[in-house]
Amino acid sequence: MAYELHYWPTIQGRGEFVRLALEAAGAPYVDVARGAEDAGQGLPALLRCMEDRTQTQPPFAPPFLKDGDVLVGQTALILQYLAPTLKLVARSERARVWTQQIQLTIADMVAEAHDTHHPVGSSLYYEDQRPEALRRAREFCATRLPKYLQWFEEILARNPAGPRHLVGGRLSYADLSLFQMIEGLRYAFPNAAQRALARTPAVVALHDRVAALPRVAAYLRSERRLPFNEQGIFRRYPELDVDPG
Amino acid sequence: MAYELHYWPTIQGRGEFVRLALEAAGAPYVDVARGAEDAGQGLPALLRCMEDRTQTQPPFAPPFLKDGDVLVGQTALILQYLAPTLKLVARSERARVWTQQIQLTIADMVAEAHDTHHPVGSSLYYEDQRPEALRRAREFCATRLPKYLQWFEEILARNPAGPRHLVGGRLSYADLSLFQMIEGLRYAFPNAAQRALARTPAVVALHDRVAALPRVAAYLRSERRLPFNEQGIFRRYPELDVDPG
Repeated sequence: MAYELHYWPTIQGRGEFVRLALEAAGAPYVDVARGAEDAGQGLPALLRCMEDRTQTQPPFAPPFLKDGDVLVGQTALILQYLAPTLKLVARSERARVWTQQIQLTIADMVAEAHDTHHPVGSSLYYEDQRPEALRRAREFCATRLPKYLQWFEEILARNPAGPRHLVGGRLSYADLSLFQMIEGLRYAFPNAAQRALARTPAVVALHDRVAALPRVAAYLRSERRLPFNEQGIFRRYPELDVDPG
Repeated sequence: MAYELHYWPTIQGRGEFVRLALEAAGAPYVDVARGAEDAGQGLPALLRCMEDRTQTQPPFAPPFLKDGDVLVGQTALILQYLAPTLKLVARSERARVWTQQIQLTIADMVAEAHDTHHPVGSSLYYEDQRPEALRRAREFCATRLPKYLQWFEEILARNPAGPRHLVGGRLSYADLSLFQMIEGLRYAFPNAAQRALARTPAVVALHDRVAALPRVAAYLRSERRLPFNEQGIFRRYPELDVDPG
């Protein structure tokens, strides 16, 4: 039976990390909120699922995955849940824990990237927190972005199986998420990302290998891949792409 | 062999969620950075471990747990890793996924609570971001804090085994973390937390039951329990305890 992914229909956002895993594995899934309302899908279906008071394990927020009668929320957990079935994680318990540790660190960086345009709070518009956003973005571009990317470069260099993957010698969901994180950083902070990525060649090479995976490449060319926009996590506000130099 | 917990020695911070699980389970552990330097412990031992370039799975930041030759970072993952051994999670895979989903949602709230005093960035002092902090705290106290607490109240109400635990009919690491989150909120935002908790009696009752667990109560009375302070995640800056009313 096809997985049901529930996420906001107009943005890549956190749901994109799950979409990428499902697409890279060629797994059957329905992107529920992007379906037709007269087919029982669309945004109302997502909201119905969230507001279903008979649901004993209700997610706090999208994205969440419906797998039969199992409902799983929290992006990194959805990936951890799917990975063994999708063959996007190694078999050993130790490798699985390490993969999830990397995924949770990617999630931390994604949250910090989001907060550059919403440092005061998600319920306010960017336009209502621009001075705060500029200060936060300056800090992010100068300090946090390079620090995270250096860590990913370092763990690739230390991978005993070589720098072609984050964990061992095979593709994992963390590799896919790293690709998406780089895509987002290049969209939101073209200059700051370029400067930082110039010093992390192994990260860039991994990004490029993921982009070239046949299923991923086909997905990126398809209309299923939403473009980045200014409602998602990664937003291009040129004033926030700060040159710390 | 005793677990080695590596975390900053002067704050509860994120490490406290791990300390609580180890203490509640009566598990042997060394709080490395709080040990004596002449015994090879103390902060230098933590830093040595972080800077060990032979470590192929280096954590991005503390806390991290050393279990023999396994090194695990990311608070929620450390708890997920420890829980089966410490008997702090149910056996069924589905219950384990749900427990971790709750834990990751607690981690999200903890990060938002932290950002009330550091909305611009962690590398700057609170004193250098007070106006931004005030706006972020207003948003947090008025909107986010009640929204999160209502979700925890709701999942307690929907637990088929009853509202005494977050998952099923037994104590899990998520219950312990909920207790710590409430402790932190009451310390940092006494008024805002009081207002929100007045509407979440099941959350308060669970907090109180955890506090009364013999091992937890003994830990809280011991000198191993660090007091809250203004270097941790939860800080008492009275001006940030905003009454949205």
